[in-house]
Formats: sequence, structure tokens, C-alpha cells
Amino acid sequence: MSLKGRHLIDPNDFTLEELNQIFELAHKMEKNPQDYSDLCKGKILATLFYEPSTRTKFSFEAAMLRLGGSILGFADANTSSVKKGESISDTIRVMDGYSDIVVMRHPREGAPKLASNFSSVPIINGGDGGHQHPTQTLTDLFTINNLKGEIKNLRIALCGDLKYGRTVHSLIKTLARYEGMSFYLISPGQLQMPVYIKDYVKNQYNVEIIETEDLEDVINKVDVLYMTRIQRERFFNEEDYLKLKNSYILTSDKIKNAKENMMIMHPLPRVNEIDYSVDDDKRAVYFKQAKYGVYARMSLIAHLLGVN
Amino acid sequence: MSLKGRHLIDPNDFTLEELNQIFELAHKMEKNPQDYSDLCKGKILATLFYEPSTRTKFSFEAAMLRLGGSILGFADANTSSVKKGESISDTIRVMDGYSDIVVMRHPREGAPKLASNFSSVPIINGGDGGHQHPTQTLTDLFTINNLKGEIKNLRIALCGDLKYGRTVHSLIKTLARYEGMSFYLISPGQLQMPVYIKDYVKNQYNVEIIETEDLEDVINKVDVLYMTRIQRERFFNEEDYLKLKNSYILTSDKIKNAKENMMIMHPLPRVNEIDYSVDDDKRAVYFKQAKYGVYARMSLIAHLLGVN
Amino acid sequence: MSLKGRHLIDPNDFTLEELNQIFELAHKMEKNPQDYSDLCKGKILATLFYEPSTRTKFSFEAAMLRLGGSILGFADANTSSVKKGESISDTIRVMDGYSDIVVMRHPREGAPKLASNFSSVPIINGGDGGHQHPTQTLTDLFTINNLKGEIKNLRIALCGDLKYGRTVHSLIKTLARYEGMSFYLISPGQLQMPVYIKDYVKNQYNVEIIETEDLEDVINKVDVLYMTRIQRERFFNEEDYLKLKNSYILTSDKIKNAKENMMIMHPLPRVNEIDYSVDDDKRAVYFKQAKYGVYARMSLIAHLLGVN
Repeated sequence: MSLKGRHLIDPNDFTLEELNQIFELAHKMEKNPQDYSDLCKGKILATLFYEPSTRTKFSFEAAMLRLGGSILGFADANTSSVKKGESISDTIRVMDGYSDIVVMRHPREGAPKLASNFSSVPIINGGDGGHQHPTQTLTDLFTINNLKGEIKNLRIALCGDLKYGRTVHSLIKTLARYEGMSFYLISPGQLQMPVYIKDYVKNQYNVEIIETEDLEDVINKVDVLYMTRIQRERFFNEEDYLKLKNSYILTSDKIKNAKENMMIMHPLPRVNEIDYSVDDDKRAVYFKQAKYGVYARMSLIAHLLGVN
Repeated sequence: MSLKGRHLIDPNDFTLEELNQIFELAHKMEKNPQDYSDLCKGKILATLFYEPSTRTKFSFEAAMLRLGGSILGFADANTSSVKKGESISDTIRVMDGYSDIVVMRHPREGAPKLASNFSSVPIINGGDGGHQHPTQTLTDLFTINNLKGEIKNLRIALCGDLKYGRTVHSLIKTLARYEGMSFYLISPGQLQMPVYIKDYVKNQYNVEIIETEDLEDVINKVDVLYMTRIQRERFFNEEDYLKLKNSYILTSDKIKNAKENMMIMHPLPRVNEIDYSVDDDKRAVYFKQAKYGVYARMSLIAHLLGVN
Repeated sequence: MSLKGRHLIDPNDFTLEELNQIFELAHKMEKNPQDYSDLCKGKILATLFYEPSTRTKFSFEAAMLRLGGSILGFADANTSSVKKGESISDTIRVMDGYSDIVVMRHPREGAPKLASNFSSVPIINGGDGGHQHPTQTLTDLFTINNLKGEIKNLRIALCGDLKYGRTVHSLIKTLARYEGMSFYLISPGQLQMPVYIKDYVKNQYNVEIIETEDLEDVINKVDVLYMTRIQRERFFNEEDYLKLKNSYILTSDKIKNAKENMMIMHPLPRVNEIDYSVDDDKRAVYFKQAKYGVYARMSLIAHLLGVN
């Protein structure tokens, strides 16, 4: 099925074959960006950010500009008609006259889905509340696919706040669809991944999940270590925070005996959960991951616009 | 007279013939947008919004981008040099070195006019206080012209807050210049159109104006029903508001016996003055109207830049 | 040495020969802008403004757009990842995947220098605290070079707040490198240029510096009069302010006997330090100077990207 005219609301909107199609084009775009520099000439991407996110916004804007397209949008609902009480369905019906494709980020879960029901142009979910962030997942998968050659038979560790982090929720639900995956979930007890997600993944895809509080326990076994930030305010008390925080900070010392081709990933921005000493290690791929995010989004835009 | 290098401050700056020229090109642009996608290559539109208006700003930006031009500007005077106390005349003399055409929206009446006195590039008034909003009028006229084939012998109803709404003031003063127009003004007594506007229109163009408080009174007679929002704070007391508000909300029920080819227009955003049940009626043209706004502005920009 | 891939942090990063190269191309760009309208096709300029400055931001954006390139960025650190506590080095390592060249303005001195240590693309200092503003200096020098034919044997007066104004600090340190320059420093005693700058300039380049409190004393002798704003809050007391403020306001009366080809410059925005009556005098070049700023930046961008 062609991706032309489709929406991307949930990473599982796409089949593995469709995801693969996106990664293949993204890979070509990374190798020869100049071949695609006029692909979206005359097309407009609208970025509707009802919640600020410079990183995601810039990545989409860079993607569209690299394809020769144009951008317009807002970074902040306070300067928009939303203030006047306009509904999402009205906003989207106006905006689709101003653009050929729309990225929407919204604090309310389901807002991009609602928008897609009224839009005549493709809607991309740029993050909706604690719910989904499918293009981060696309970025993460493309990074693994590109650096490992394929997504298959991998031990993936997810580390940090696994309770509130939507990034890791999207990621595990999508990775679990691939063959031979197993997961190590590393977090303080009070920030464990919600049971309904673990159950879903286990029942649906029959993957192995191992939970631990101790990063050093599993770090030498895994192929991918996906780090996320633990916000101080997520802890129930200061004592717990002080006790645990250092154990979730990655240092060059802790990766001494990790696999040689392990990939250390992070959705960024980081605060202090990865020590700067790790940056120069060749296993640290998080800045590369940010760059790959542009190519993943370029390919996504090209597919949804049907110009791939 | 060519429109090249001219300013648009008041809709009546242009003759009917000039307006027609703009509509003709806008119509062609709507039919074959791809023929115009490089018309403004290398040109820059500056959007100086001293007062936020996402809708108008996006419409202009989309227009310029669809013509292959570029955009820069601010959405909010707080991030501009205005904060440092710079005068409008200085700002405009600097900005005209940065751009080929300028749209200015300003809370103070007359500000775009003042700017035009100092500018070496065309200034478009994007709305000045309660005064003028000429490109909304251009959009409204182009919509009528495009859907009716011409602007002639029409019964136009304007409904809602006719006292404070600058949109309807600009609109009636411009529509009245066309042949055979008559107007129905529907509003609560305390929100009637100001006498000086009614007098101006009647004396200048000898058109018929009928005023009423009752929408249902006239709805079956008119060719165009132009709805606007009534803000709760415009009422003198809550009691009046509660008594009247429902009578100015358009529902599918109220249009049951209206003309088959009546056009229901609205400048948007709407809050609740048109019920969602009306949206699917083929007479509801307000979303189409928003799309036509881009073509009207594309044509305007092309004419003022002399690239039409 | 080629400027390709270099950073511009301090105006003295470039040799006089390199500056001259930039002015030569800027001059050609001013004469025949259309010859350069595709020079940066496919390139992206990122504007990272951690401190608002519409003027500088627009000038860079206009420059990049006039070269056929694209722009993205933020005008205000509050809508960026900075809020989440990200370091400058991380931000820049992500941004250089989104763009081909970066302009950074930051309230903290040294921030652009720090960024340049981590960036794989050229960084341009767009102003860092009270420290440097090299592209303003580039603009000022290009203006003098373009209008005088060369920068040589000139008497330059700098007037206003010479203590806190980073613009004049950068300017004098760069101008002093040229042959045969002498300087008149006009300011209230309490707002004199810092001793360390005067000493640096005198010792390094052996130029003559004359200080005075009286503008009218020297106005008839100089080739260039560079005016800057005195902010009321810089004065120790209101009495001093009231006594002195008028003597630093330039009027058409004061320039009656000035040289015929004197150039009156100002970095803009002005508040009241140059009377509007001066604007029509052919010696007033400040609006021209703002326009030249776009060409100086166009040439700079082209050189750093290596597409000149």
C-alpha cells in the first residue's frame, strides 16, 4: 500500500514493510542528499506546535528545507488563533489550505488523531502529551537499522524513567514487532514501565522482558543502550533521588566492558544522565542519531507527499 | 494605472477595475497554481505583526511561498526593536532594505499609512486597530466573485457584531461600490453598524440598507449571509447576552428554507456562531473562503511587485 | 588563507586582506544582486538568538534568502531546549546536523567561541554580551570602504556612550589596524571609553586618540561621525543626564559647518540621539548603512561556506 496521503499518528500505523521503505529512502538521502534537494520544490510544511519543542521542530524544518520545500508555522499556541477559542478541527481545515503537509505537536493526547479526521493533507503527530512521538521512534529505528544493517536479534536496554517517558513506550511497542528482540528495562522501582505496556508487548509479540534496578548488571550484555533522563520531580522523596541518581548516570567507566559494537542512544536533550567523558567513545551515537532524525523525516515527508 | 509599487492601505485605494484585475489573476492562480510557482523567486516578503494574528500571517506567508518567494518577519512586537523605542518610520526605512514588500499589522489606526509614507517598497495593511483590514475584504470579494461569477445585483446580509467589527465595515464600504447591491444588517440594537458608515454608504452609493434584530426574518431572501462573532463582553449586561445569543447562532435548521445558492461566509476563527451541523451544507463556504484568501493575496503580491 | 569553514567570533579573527576580500564581494553583490541569487541554494542558515535582536536576525535572514538559501532558528531561548538545561556544546552538536552555518547571539560573553569549539560548521558571533558584535563592525567598515573608496587616512569621531557600547569597542579596535587613522572620542566623562581599550589601540597601532566632552568642538574636523545612544540609566544622577543629554543630540544645526563629505553613521535603532531633521542631509548614511549590512553579511556567508 502506498504511503501517499496517509497520516502518521502512531508508529504502528505503518507495517514493517512500510517502515523499511522509509528507512531505505532515508539511507539513500543520507548518502546523496544533493539528489533530493528539489524533491519537494513548491511544497509547504506547516508546523503547528501547541507545545514548544525546538528540537523536533528544527528537525522537521531542516528536513523540509533539505528537500527544497518551504516551511511556515507557530512555535507557541499563544500567538495563534487558539487563544480566540478556535477548535482543532477548524484550525486544521484552514491550515490545510495553507500547506501540503502538517506536523502537529499538542499537549493533549489524541489531538493529532482528531486533526487527521478533518484534514485533506497528511498529518504527522509531532508528539501528543504523554502518548506518542512516532517520528522519534522512526529516528531511533532508522539509527539502529542504519548502524546495525538490520533490526533483528538484538538485546535492547532501556534505561531511566520508563514510567512517564513516552519515547520509550513508543519505542518498545515498535521494536517488539521485529524478529528476535529482547528487552532489559532498567529503572528505579517507582519509575518502572507501566504493566499494560509490558503485558501488551509480551502477549502480542512474545518477547522476553527482564527488569532490573541496576544498570551495571546488564550493560555488558546488550547491543543497544537507550538512555533517558530522570527528572528529579518524578521521585517521591529527595532521599530516594539522592540514593539512586548516580546509578543512572552513564560514565566511561561503566562501559569499559560493554560490547565493542554496542550503541549508546539518547533522544536528547540530555542534562547529566550521560557524562561528557562518554561523548568521544565510538559507541556513543546520540549526536549521529539526531542527524539521522533529519533523514528519517525527509523520507517520511517524501513518502506521505508521494514524491519519493 | 499599474498597481506596481503601489500600497494597499484601504480597500478603496483601488478602483473596481483594479480590484477586478486582482480577482482575474487570483482566479487563474487557483486553477493552475503550478504556473505561478516561480513568479516571485528571489523576492522577500516581510511580515511585521505588531499584534498577533496567526491566520492573516499564515495566509500571506503561504501566498508568498506558493509564488516561490521567501518570508521573514516577527509575530510579536516584544521580540522586535520596537521595545527599544524605535519609531515606525525608522523601522520601515530599515526593513525596506531587507525585503521587497511588507505586510504590517498594528494595533494603532493609521500606522500602516504612516509606514507607507517612508517606504520605498509596497506596504500592505494587514489590519490596523479597529480601522481597516483590506486583504480580508479582498478575500471576501474574491470569494463572492469566484462563486457567483460576478459581483452584481446581490442581497447581502451582515450578521453579528456590526458595531466593532472592522471586517464588516471594510466589506460594506467596498461592496457598496458595485452595481445593484442591497444590504441587510442583522444585529442586536446595541451592536448596530455605526451611523457614519451607514450614512456614508447610502449617500455615496445610494444603496438600500435594511436593519433588523432578527436573523430568521431575512435569511430566506439573501444571496450572501456574512456571519461574525459577537463577543460576550460587548453586551452591556449578562441578561441581554443570554436573551440574544442564540438568535445569532446559525444552525442547519435556520437555513432550511434559505436560497439554494446562498453563500454562508465567515472571516474565521468562529467560536460558536455557526453550528457544526452547518459545515456539511454546500452553502457553507467559509473554509473555501479561507483558501481563496491565499489566492487573493498571491495575486495582490504579484501585482504590487509588478510581476503579474 | 581561504575563509571556507572558518568561524567569525572577533573582528580581528580576519586579516585586513581577508576583510578586504569580503568587502570586494559585498560591493559586487550590492551592484548586481541577481548574479548571486542562487549562490547558497540548498544551504541552511540557523539563527540561534538566546537574546532577542530583530535587527541583526533580519539582516542575516535577508542575506541568506537573497543568496537563495534557507533559514531556521529561534528568536528567544524560552522556546528552545535551553529551558530543559541543555549545554551550549550539546545544542551546537545537534544544530550542526540541521544547518550549514550558524549565527549565535548570546547574553554570555564567550558563548559563541565555546560553540565554535564543538561545531563542524562555521559559527558567526551575532553578539555576545558586552563583548563583541563583529558583523556590526563588518557592516560599519564596509560602509566606510564603499562610500570613501578605501579605509585610509580618516578622522573618525565616536560619540555617545563609549563605556558600555560594545559596537564602538569592536569598531575602534578594528579601524585602528588601518593606515593613517585618528580618533575623536566624544562622551560625558563618566561614559568614556575604558582605559584598557584606549591603551590597547594606542600601543598596538600607534594611533592618535583625542578625548572631549563636546561634540561641537570636533564636528567640523572629522570624516566620519559615528553616533550611539546614551541610555538614561547609565548616568549616575538625573541632574547630569539633564545637563548633558542635549549636547549629544545631533541636529541639522550642528552639522552646518561640518565637512561636505562627512559620513554620519549610527548602528540603529536610534531613539532621539539624531534629530529627524538630519535624515534628509546627504551626509546622513545610517539607513544606507543598514542596507549595506545585508551585503556585508551575504559576502561573509558566501566566504565561510566557500561558495564565493
